[in-house]
Amino acid sequence: MHFVGRSWLLLTGFILFYVIYLLFGALVFSSIERPMEDRMRTELKALKQEFLNLSCVSDASLERFLLKVLAANKYGVSVLRNASTTSNWDLASSMFFANTLVTTVGYGHTTPLSDTGKAFSILYALIGVPFTMLVLTACVQRIMFPLVLVPLGLLQRSGLEPRPATIVHFLLLLILLVMCFFVAPAAVFSAVELSWSFLDGIYFCFISLCTIGLGDFVPGTQPNQQYRSLYQVAVMGECSC
Amino acid sequence: MHFVGRSWLLLTGFILFYVIYLLFGALVFSSIERPMEDRMRTELKALKQEFLNLSCVSDASLERFLLKVLAANKYGVSVLRNASTTSNWDLASSMFFANTLVTTVGYGHTTPLSDTGKAFSILYALIGVPFTMLVLTACVQRIMFPLVLVPLGLLQRSGLEPRPATIVHFLLLLILLVMCFFVAPAAVFSAVELSWSFLDGIYFCFISLCTIGLGDFVPGTQPNQQYRSLYQVAVMGECSC
Repeated sequence: MHFVGRSWLLLTGFILFYVIYLLFGALVFSSIERPMEDRMRTELKALKQEFLNLSCVSDASLERFLLKVLAANKYGVSVLRNASTTSNWDLASSMFFANTLVTTVGYGHTTPLSDTGKAFSILYALIGVPFTMLVLTACVQRIMFPLVLVPLGLLQRSGLEPRPATIVHFLLLLILLVMCFFVAPAAVFSAVELSWSFLDGIYFCFISLCTIGLGDFVPGTQPNQQYRSLYQVAVMGECSC
Repeated sequence: MHFVGRSWLLLTGFILFYVIYLLFGALVFSSIERPMEDRMRTELKALKQEFLNLSCVSDASLERFLLKVLAANKYGVSVLRNASTTSNWDLASSMFFANTLVTTVGYGHTTPLSDTGKAFSILYALIGVPFTMLVLTACVQRIMFPLVLVPLGLLQRSGLEPRPATIVHFLLLLILLVMCFFVAPAAVFSAVELSWSFLDGIYFCFISLCTIGLGDFVPGTQPNQQYRSLYQVAVMGECSC
């Protein structure tokens, strides 16, 4: 009974710490982002007023127009001239979307417009998500041998004790993973995507690999990008890992 | 060696089926969504032309204005009049964002604007995601007893054999879960959120609970919503499960 009581106390402590962690995050995000947001809001208001002063449209009709523009934009349909040539639902983009569903990344840069699309998304993910987990687990089991057992054996045979060998192996693996899944892709993204900095690339890789998928940065969405389909399939590989 | 060969063959089969599943999804999504998207695109083009005809602004200056409007909208800053009063980074909204980070749902309806915010998001999720998994696992372990062991014992004591008792228990648990995590929240959402249908509510619950988090439906984002903060905290509970 004493053990059960202590285990409940531990859980309550965990939950309390979780709420405090969320509150702490909220305070930091609020203090960092709110001034930026306020500035953007003021600039946008001034821009709208300036636009209204220069044109002869009424505030109400501009509001109606913008309401529809923003509603369409939410579904990935842009009003801008140079964005109209590429579809969000061609084969490569649809495959990219399907991949973000089954890996639970879900950028949300394109989302189903129709009720049929929404219902199919549910059904598709219901089968696809567990199957993807299965495939990934099977892949990880295969990689364990060449990435963990072989190098550990080599390090120990070279004269290192088991404990230092594990530490050296962990550090080497960490460097390899950071290089392959963060530094190298971020370097490619900051070169290929016009408006991305290197930090944006790192941020995108992290947000994708954690399956958070905020969707503020999505590769292959800038207009008239060359080899877009091929590029999207390559990014799918990164996301699937 | 024979076993190793068969296991590699199985993995190749898995990966092949995974690619076929993605291709199949892409074909279905493309065929369902593309006509809807084309229609929306044509309507938007006509709307823009009509707006240009009625106003005395040039195409180029409207394009410049819309470019900035859409860029700000990407970060959750809306140009619309009635959306300007509420901040995306007040304490409740920031906590909601922090929760979408650590649960890996990541709707992306608001995203960090600054480099500091992006860097902090990485650090915050790096600690928060594993910790959230730990808390959830501890919670699940606690619920196992009253939700699985107790009812199974009761069913078996009422005269059912272990196998039928397991089936009955599974069905009852499934109904309970579907009612608590899909039907009831969807009913609330379709009542509280003005533009949500019941299917939209179910779709939102599914996309959130799978941690896909597309962000096309996010509760508590319509302007001038009453008890917004309280409501967002309640939705956080649903997402954390």
